Formats: sequence, C-alpha cells, structure tokens
Amino acid sequence: MSRPTTIPIAPNLSHVAPPAESVAQLTIGQYLIRRLQDYGIGHVFGIPGDYILNFYAELEKSPLEVVGCTREDCAGFAADAYARVHGMGAVCVTYCVGGLSLCNSVAGAYAEKSPVVVITGSPGLRERVNNPLLHHRVRDFRTQMEVFEKLCIAGTDLSDPVVAFREIDRVLDAANRYKRPVYIEMPRDMVGVVPEMQQPYQRPVPTSDRNTLVEAVREAAEFIERAERPVIVAGVELHRFGLQDKLVELAEASGIAMTATMLGKSVVRETHPLYVGLYEGAMGDDTVTRFVEESDCVLLLGTFMTDINLGIYTANLDPANCIYVTSEQLRIRHHHYHNVLLEDFVTSLAEARPKAAPRVVPRPKGLAQDAYVLAADAPITITRLIARLNQALDDETIVIADIGDSLFAATELVTRGRTEFLSPAYYTSMGFSVPAAVGAQFARPDARVVVVAGDGAFQMTGMEMSTLVRHGFSTIIIVLDNKGYGTERFLHPGDWSFNNVHPWQYHRLPEVLGGGTGYEVLTEGEFDDVLEKAWADRSGISLIHVHLSLDDRSKALDRLAEKLKHRV
Amino acid sequence: MSRPTTIPIAPNLSHVAPPAESVAQLTIGQYLIRRLQDYGIGHVFGIPGDYILNFYAELEKSPLEVVGCTREDCAGFAADAYARVHGMGAVCVTYCVGGLSLCNSVAGAYAEKSPVVVITGSPGLRERVNNPLLHHRVRDFRTQMEVFEKLCIAGTDLSDPVVAFREIDRVLDAANRYKRPVYIEMPRDMVGVVPEMQQPYQRPVPTSDRNTLVEAVREAAEFIERAERPVIVAGVELHRFGLQDKLVELAEASGIAMTATMLGKSVVRETHPLYVGLYEGAMGDDTVTRFVEESDCVLLLGTFMTDINLGIYTANLDPANCIYVTSEQLRIRHHHYHNVLLEDFVTSLAEARPKAAPRVVPRPKGLAQDAYVLAADAPITITRLIARLNQALDDETIVIADIGDSLFAATELVTRGRTEFLSPAYYTSMGFSVPAAVGAQFARPDARVVVVAGDGAFQMTGMEMSTLVRHGFSTIIIVLDNKGYGTERFLHPGDWSFNNVHPWQYHRLPEVLGGGTGYEVLTEGEFDDVLEKAWADRSGISLIHVHLSLDDRSKALDRLAEKLKHRV
Repeated sequence: MSRPTTIPIAPNLSHVAPPAESVAQLTIGQYLIRRLQDYGIGHVFGIPGDYILNFYAELEKSPLEVVGCTREDCAGFAADAYARVHGMGAVCVTYCVGGLSLCNSVAGAYAEKSPVVVITGSPGLRERVNNPLLHHRVRDFRTQMEVFEKLCIAGTDLSDPVVAFREIDRVLDAANRYKRPVYIEMPRDMVGVVPEMQQPYQRPVPTSDRNTLVEAVREAAEFIERAERPVIVAGVELHRFGLQDKLVELAEASGIAMTATMLGKSVVRETHPLYVGLYEGAMGDDTVTRFVEESDCVLLLGTFMTDINLGIYTANLDPANCIYVTSEQLRIRHHHYHNVLLEDFVTSLAEARPKAAPRVVPRPKGLAQDAYVLAADAPITITRLIARLNQALDDETIVIADIGDSLFAATELVTRGRTEFLSPAYYTSMGFSVPAAVGAQFARPDARVVVVAGDGAFQMTGMEMSTLVRHGFSTIIIVLDNKGYGTERFLHPGDWSFNNVHPWQYHRLPEVLGGGTGYEVLTEGEFDDVLEKAWADRSGISLIHVHLSLDDRSKALDRLAEKLKHRV
Repeated sequence: MSRPTTIPIAPNLSHVAPPAESVAQLTIGQYLIRRLQDYGIGHVFGIPGDYILNFYAELEKSPLEVVGCTREDCAGFAADAYARVHGMGAVCVTYCVGGLSLCNSVAGAYAEKSPVVVITGSPGLRERVNNPLLHHRVRDFRTQMEVFEKLCIAGTDLSDPVVAFREIDRVLDAANRYKRPVYIEMPRDMVGVVPEMQQPYQRPVPTSDRNTLVEAVREAAEFIERAERPVIVAGVELHRFGLQDKLVELAEASGIAMTATMLGKSVVRETHPLYVGLYEGAMGDDTVTRFVEESDCVLLLGTFMTDINLGIYTANLDPANCIYVTSEQLRIRHHHYHNVLLEDFVTSLAEARPKAAPRVVPRPKGLAQDAYVLAADAPITITRLIARLNQALDDETIVIADIGDSLFAATELVTRGRTEFLSPAYYTSMGFSVPAAVGAQFARPDARVVVVAGDGAFQMTGMEMSTLVRHGFSTIIIVLDNKGYGTERFLHPGDWSFNNVHPWQYHRLPEVLGGGTGYEVLTEGEFDDVLEKAWADRSGISLIHVHLSLDDRSKALDRLAEKLKHRV
C-alpha cells in the first residue's frame, strides 16, 4: 500500500519556540504579531472598536491580513474553522461588547479542541484611576477576563511590560499544546510599549514517562495480536495533533480496519481500503455498528466519548474490549496509564507493527451504493441531495455541515483525497457553517468550500456570506429550507409553532450583497442542474435555496428520533 | 402647570408579592410562568433547543406569547428593550449554545440597569450521572452558571424542588429591586416536577433609615433654597424606578430647570417648559453645558456618571456644588448618606417643595431652531436627516438609536408626549437597535417605532427585521450608509481599511423577507418624500437606505473627535 500522502494534515506546530533573535526593539503589540506568525497564522478575524483600534493599526501595518467580519461571533467561528484547517487561528475584538459577543464561539472551540487565540483590547491602565464608569464596562474592569477564564485553557492580561513577552509565549504555547482557546487582553496604552527588559519564557516540554509508555504499548500490541476482530475508531484529536499519517501507518502495517466518529469524520480519507464507515452507535449504519460492537479489541484513538458523537449513548462498547487513548487519558480495559502522550503512544504503537487477525472489511455505504440515477421530476429530498452532492466532491473540497439534519445527512458523504469535513458535532452550535466557511476559505483559498445549512441555522449567521462575497470566494452554500427547526420537530413531536421560522427568499441574498448567484430548487433535476452550474462557476458564491417537504428527514435523524423517544 | 400625565411611565412593580392563593398543584415550569405574569410579562423572546423544549411546550400552552427571534443575542436585546419600555423582560434559550450567545446582551442590560430574566434549560439531573460529555457542554455542567454569575445580579439553578418556588421568587424580586438581569437555569427533568412541599419566600422589604432620610432631604432642600442657579440633571434610573412623575412634580413645585443625560434622554418630555436640553459636557450644546456648569446647585438624580453619558469626562462639575443621588449612593457635596432609597429621597424632596431661585430657562435647540426648510436637491446629511425626522415625531413614537453617529446625531431629536428614546448609550453595543425594535413593538404594539442605525451596526443584527415582518409591525428602519464604521474613522484618523464594511443593497432586504418596502435615498427631497410615505404606511416595515458622504458627521461627533484627540 502506498503512503497516504494526500490526506489532509494539520501542520505540526509542536516545535514552535520563542524567537531566538533579538526582539528588544519590539513593542508589545509587535511582539504578539511576530509570535502569531511563528505559529503559522496569516489572518486575523474580527471587528475593530475603540479599545483595540491602535492594535488594529499595528495589524494593518504588519504581514498579517485582517479579515473584517459582520459580527464578532462570526469572526470567532471563522477563527475556529481556520484553526481546524490550518493549525491555529486568531480573533481580535474590542472590550466587552466585542469580547462578550465571542463567548459562544470560544466555548465551542474549547469543547471541540480548536486552538483559537482571542485578542481583545481593554481600557488603558492610565484611564482606570479612580475606577470610572468607562463605556463598555460591565461590573468591573476584570469581568471579561473572569468570563473567559471559564472558557479558555489559559489567559493573560498584558498589564506589566516586564512579563508581557513571556506571558504571550506562555499563552500561545498552551493553545498549541492543549488545542484549546486562549485569551490575551491588552490595555490599550500597553500596545505601543517597548519593555525595558524581558524575562525569557521557559517552555515546559511535556514528555511521556518512558517505562509507562513501553509497558502500555506492549500491552496494547499484545491485546491487538490476541484479538480475533480488532478495529480502530478514529477521533478528531488525531487531526488536531497532526497524527493522521501515523494512524494510517498503524492501520496499514497491522491490517486493522478503521472507523471514525462523527466529529472525527475526514480524519482518515473515506476511500481508504481499510475504512469501514462512521461509527455512531444505534444512530449509524448497522454494518458499521456491528463491525465495531462485535469487535474484541476496539482501539479508540483520539476519540471524545460524547453523546452526539456516539449516537446519544446508544454506543454499546464493553470497556473490557477497549483501548481508549486521548490527549487526556490512556485506558486499557479497566486500568489507566498516566503520563503517556497521545502522540508518543500512537507513534510507538505504529512502530511496534502488531499483526492483527484479518477481517473482511465491508465497503462504506456511500461507495457501495448503486450509481446515483436521477429522477428529474421528483421533489428533492435531503437524502437524495446528499447522494447527488457526494458525486460532485473532489479531492480539494471542504464540506462544512451546520447543526441539525444538515449534519446527520451529510455524514453520508464520502470524503476523499484532501477533502475535509468540518462540523461542530459535539458542541452542536447552530450557525457555525457560513462563518466557518470564511475561515476555511482563507486557510485554503483554492479549495472548493461547500456549506450545508438548515434555514434555522442560516438565519443566525448566514449574512456572513457578505465576507465571502467581499473577498471573491466561490463558496457553494446550500440552504435546506423546511421552514423551521426541523430536527426539533422530530425530537419533541407535536404541532409546536415555536419550531417554525419566518420564510426568507434566501436565493435573493446575492442581489443584496452585490455578488454571486442565487438559485431556487424544488426537484432532483433542478438540483442536478444547479449544482453543476455552481461547481463550474468560479466567479463568486452560489447560494442554492432548496425547498424541502416539512416532514423530510435523513435516515440518521429517523433513527435518532426513534432512540430519543425512549430517553427524554 | 398641569400634571404631566402624558410622559411615559415605567410600571411600578415594587409591590409585586408572591401569589397568595394555592400553588400546590403547579409544576416548577408552571410556577415560573405564573410569576413572570405577576411582573407584567406578556412575551418571552428566544429560540428553542432540546434542553429547553419541554419548557417551551409549557410556554406555548400558557398565556405568555413566545416570540421566536433569528438569534439568541437578538432575543436578549429584544427582552432588554421590552424591559426598558414595559418594566421587565424575559428571554428563554437552550443550554450553552443558547445561553452563552446571550452574554453580550445580558452584560448590556446589567451595565444599563434593565431587568431581564434569563431562562435557560440544562441537562437533566438524571442524565448527569457519571459526568458524561453531553452535547453543548463546555467545561463542566456549571460553566454557564459561572459565566452568568459575572453578568447577573442574582441567579439560581432549580435542581431542588423543595426550594424551587422560593428561589424563583427570590431571583425575580432581585431583578425588580435592582433593575439588573437575573439568571434561572432549569435542568430539563425539573420542568414538570410538582414540589411535594414549598418553603415560602420571605421577601426582604428594603427601607430607608428614617432619620438619615429626614436629615438628607432637609440638607438638600436648604442647599437648593440657598442656591442662586440650581439645576436638575435627570438620569435613566428615574425611568427604571418609575419616578418620572416625581421628577416633574419636584421641578414644577420648586421651579428648577431640568436637563438630562444621554442615557436619560426622554426621562422627561423634552417639550416641558422647564427642560433645557441634554447635558453632555463639552460634547454637547454650549448653552446647556454652561447652564449646568455655572450652577451652584446641581441635583444629579438617578444619573450614571459614565464617560459617554457625560461627554467622555469633559463634564466639568465641582462636587462642592452637587447633590448626587442614585439607587446605589447619596452624596451631598463631599459627604455621604447611607441607607436612603432613591425613591424615598426623590419623593420626600418633592414633598418638601423647596423654593428655588428663578433662572431664565433657555429653550432646547430642536425647538428653538428655525423651521426646517427643504433643500430638495441637496445631498442628505445626517444633521439634516435628524432635523427632518424631528418634525415627524409624534406623541406615540419610540426612537431607537444604534451606536455611533446614529446616537450622537439622534440626541438632537426632541422627545414629546409618550415618545421614548432608547439607546445603549453607556454600554454602547453596536447592533442593539433592530432587535430592540422587536421588544419595543411587542411592549407597545401601537407605537410607531423608528430605528436609526449605521451600516456597520445594521450588518450585525439587522436581519432581525425578519421578526418585525413576521408579526406585521410597521417599524421604520433608517440605515445610515457611509460604508463603514464611521465613528471610528474620526476617533482614530488615518486611511485604515478595517473601518470599511462591504456595501449591501439594504433596500432590497424587504424582498428577501417577503414583507415591507425598501427605499433608497440620496437627497433631502427624496428623504422628505420617503419619510412621509413610510409614516403613512401601516402595512409593514419601511427600510430607508440613506447614502451619506463618507466624511459626513454630526456636530456632536465633531466635538467628540476633537476632545478625544487630546486624550487617547
């Protein structure tokens, strides 16, 4: 088997060190910009405001590109998606009215381990004397910082020039190491300060305990070799920590079949011969569920054990058959190994090349199914739409699914080559997709980004298309219009009017934004025709407004609703 | 002088007590609904989501009307505006993805003292066993509650049926007493629980210390009588605590002229013979500034001493000449009185009827100026637009100004009759206005609501027009299009591209939303014509897209930019 050179790889940032050359003449603002570049950041998303204006001026003079968004929370989603595709992202906003508008986006990045750097201005230290009621203030000057302490893995307030550089180093290192958001607050009179002295940051280098690692890998290898039906369940942390190649190396060397979780979809290209499909408990495809749950050695690699991710706890896995490895813990059967890094474990296990018993690997659904035969006059359904879209995906597509049936249905897409699949499948915040497309497009300007969003989600943040139009991207945005919060209709049956949303003429929005093309689709034939046109069009966005029947739904949502009926 | 029966009065809710009749058969959800009604709440703004779906079902069955918004933060602004007009507001959302999207709106309500009840669902207690990664979770189950502890005056987690009713009483009482937002979290399996017993809430009744009150009022009255040039500066707390009538009673009985702060605009109707104008320090009109700053007895009533509110600290007031009274403190010259309630002080001082020395009261600018003479072909400017709009205001108008020059320019409007003027003039969060119009319209369905928003602010939340269209309101929305964050261009001069926003065809949006009429305006003649049409049209929203020159600005912004040049 050939080396999997085409799967998308998050850049490995583990060896980024503070700059060795002199930084003595830099201001605090300039130093922060320098360090963001060290981590590969080329774009900063956000909205200016008076407490951050002088740092914006520094940004505009720097090699970093400022990408203005329509709203702060959208800028947060964009930075999150940029981080997921590019390794690290940054968002820059003003104090409180800006920062507190980011809470939800940053919470999502925390929950799903996306390293986003939150940069915010604040009142200058000289302005704070006598504790005045400066505008944008909530309770006291620390309120915003206290809120972000709950939502970030590390944070700092750059109020002391002596430690400012070291603090920047520490906080960015934490974002990179833990793949979680961090918080940097700059009083506006600190941006231009050149520290008279600096104390260098002593970067702690996390290492595995050698003996523990050896014992754990040996036990895991023996477990795999003794098993009759081993399987890998690949999770999103393999992507975050840049371990996709190692995963495939292990699978190929050992001959172990692979599945992935919903959040981990596209961690391994789904056309890989050893790939079986998504494992989603009773919510997912039966073949995959059985393949995993009948296994006597389930290797869970970088997998969050979350409810949606594992089919609302319909997953049926006996810990006695599991090896569970994440950046936070390593458990084999019922015992734990401490002080073993995820990357060391995966690398060493791949090097150990345990020989697994062969299993017949079923082909994933999307590939196995019959060719898509168009029924031109049939009303379009979500299942058929996804099947048709599946045909169009190529090696450079990034699919972004919003929450709701957009996600459940889109899990049937088969990612290939450098296809990426992004969705907040654990935190499940509606409105992620369009702003995320902004981040993904700046991270991979030549990629074809396809957004699938329900109408409810689109109404939350869809106007961020403005930024896609402004920068000339040819993003394809598919709005699934069932006139409401469709998933909720099935989760809580009854004729509840609160699940309806006001209908918009979504396809008219390109006219409002002065760019791109809008389409309205009712039948399979129309969708087929429009998708072809949109794919060929590199001149601007395409917005495809798809009218669905109110009771249309994917098979996955059907299965989910069935399960939840017995739980809530 | 006649009694000021036409000024807008916030309902006095100070005597709302827990229900006397039996509540023994109510569920926790039903009890909360009952108590919201006791406080005059008729509408709940929000977005449903799975952790709050069963409470939404209770709401839909109740007399309360659920108003679905497009996004949670918009629902928060709507509830805030509803509270400002109606006395108390409520917003209801799901866990984390919903709640954390409210942080900025709720922070604004906290900063400007608007009593908003935040109601949120959360995972059921039975689901939390073994600490699973349930969807929407951030760090642990308490994260959202911990965030809102920073942004609310009181909060509760209804996890114990025995104290649930008492907790609801306590928290709603705090919202009402302090005029700040409060937080109520309901695990979803608690909504339908009927408590087996309840402990009644012992409502603390705050009272003034009698002797302190008498001494303070006596000193204030003597101060006023001795003064040669007394003046009142009226603040927004007079509105929040329903003291507008008392203010006018005091002013009329004592013959003291009144001014107001920006945040307090419309606390007193601006056509009142004793009203001088807005006091905004050096930012404001010279006549008013001199009238206040030359005074030897400035009675600051319910005024927040904030920077924007007082002209970015260009206010020049000597504490030796001031009586400063708010719900939080009472200071006369340099000494403080504790334990005196704002309402008791204002009421007692009005009853004392101190006789003030007469002053010649200058007429406010908007009234004194020459009649508006149309220059039909002249390009429209913001100053002329506001002057023309001023002519149109009637006794039933609610003006909502967004942040930026929308606010600075709109302060020149003269409120009259039951006109209200709403703007987040202290917290200054852009994007407040359109969602706030939703709240204001439901609070006063027959009022004419006029929104003035810059293009930058409009792009943040303007699509909330969807909810206005959905409910058939005839709101007039004026979008001031100068293709960017205009105020910032003046605050931080330089040719910075980050202050530009992507141009939209705002006037086309009614077509997208399927209701209302869009207009495009370039000249005074066009604006005159369109405003007349819009005012006559009760069939739906009117969106007036006004093209302004990039360097157009109000006189207030000019003065502000001039002042800030010397400070930042």
